[in-house]
Amino acid sequence: MTTAGRTNRREPQQERSRITRERLLSSTIEALAQDGWSAATVAAVAERAGVSRGAAQHHFPTREALITATLEQVFDDLADSATRAHPVPDDADRVSVAVEHAVAMYTGTEFKAALQIWAAAASDSALRALILPMEARFARAAHRTTMAVLGAEPDDDAAHRAVQATLDLARGLGLADTLSDDSARRAQVVATWSEMMRAMLV
Amino acid sequence: MTTAGRTNRREPQQERSRITRERLLSSTIEALAQDGWSAATVAAVAERAGVSRGAAQHHFPTREALITATLEQVFDDLADSATRAHPVPDDADRVSVAVEHAVAMYTGTEFKAALQIWAAAASDSALRALILPMEARFARAAHRTTMAVLGAEPDDDAAHRAVQATLDLARGLGLADTLSDDSARRAQVVATWSEMMRAMLV
Repeated sequence: MTTAGRTNRREPQQERSRITRERLLSSTIEALAQDGWSAATVAAVAERAGVSRGAAQHHFPTREALITATLEQVFDDLADSATRAHPVPDDADRVSVAVEHAVAMYTGTEFKAALQIWAAAASDSALRALILPMEARFARAAHRTTMAVLGAEPDDDAAHRAVQATLDLARGLGLADTLSDDSARRAQVVATWSEMMRAMLV
Repeated sequence: MTTAGRTNRREPQQERSRITRERLLSSTIEALAQDGWSAATVAAVAERAGVSRGAAQHHFPTREALITATLEQVFDDLADSATRAHPVPDDADRVSVAVEHAVAMYTGTEFKAALQIWAAAASDSALRALILPMEARFARAAHRTTMAVLGAEPDDDAAHRAVQATLDLARGLGLADTLSDDSARRAQVVATWSEMMRAMLV
């Protein structure tokens, strides 16, 4: 048997392992967002993902390991969505695009999952210590991208302050959306906010 | 023994019972806000309140009964703080007072406790059904009071929309304050927001 042969046999196994891990993490995000903290145990998530409990425990021996990995995945996903380049068409209303992009970040499945971990961190200082730097990094990425979508200069102080308020507003709208579908009311608030931003940034 | 005598003997007992109930509820609010959902069990709250477990179970036979009563207390407190008349001095900046009052409602102990119950409601549709009307009633009270503090006319559409956005912003700021003390950054956002409100409402 050649070395190449060995590598070929190992690669599919590593690939399967990677896919299993990803499936477990996306099932955990879904479980947290839809069914809350109590639904995100290794056993429940294994069942949801269609993975054997043994395989799940191989990847995540404890609930703590599962939650930590999920938290990293959630903030990676959020940072991805924050930094994703959205070429804004020349004739677009940049303020509306920026506000809608910010609000979209806080009303998706990832934010709902993060909120559950966030709430659980109230009674878990180790978890809180994990979240704080991730949240700060995401907030910086969201801020940078919103400035870029606005087309604001880096030294535009009014834009920086308006963007900061925009992200706080988006977080509040995200929270309101966790109990019931708030999309109709949210569209009105986004329109009002865009109007206020335009008045400030003109 | 006269009827009056009986009444007199019974009143202190009823009064003690009322005080015990109130103490259990305020301990539950504190436990939720400081230590999260898992800290709010009948036994843990009895210990925190310095009440015997038997007395606590007399008032709240189940955790569900304790959480339901706490939820009502939290939203009564929030609605109280929302509707409390704040005579605004003639020379005050009404916009700043209104924004600061709105933000104060969402950054206190009651909101942090409500947030824990809110997060737990993701996996509990009965709890969600309880919260939704209370939250809606509180939102209406907060809206009315913020309009009154602004001194806006009831038919001022721009003011209604700005107030709605203000309450969403306040909710977002409240959430940001649950992981770590966010008061310094919040003061800047409140100043920016007040400036934008003034521009819109002039």
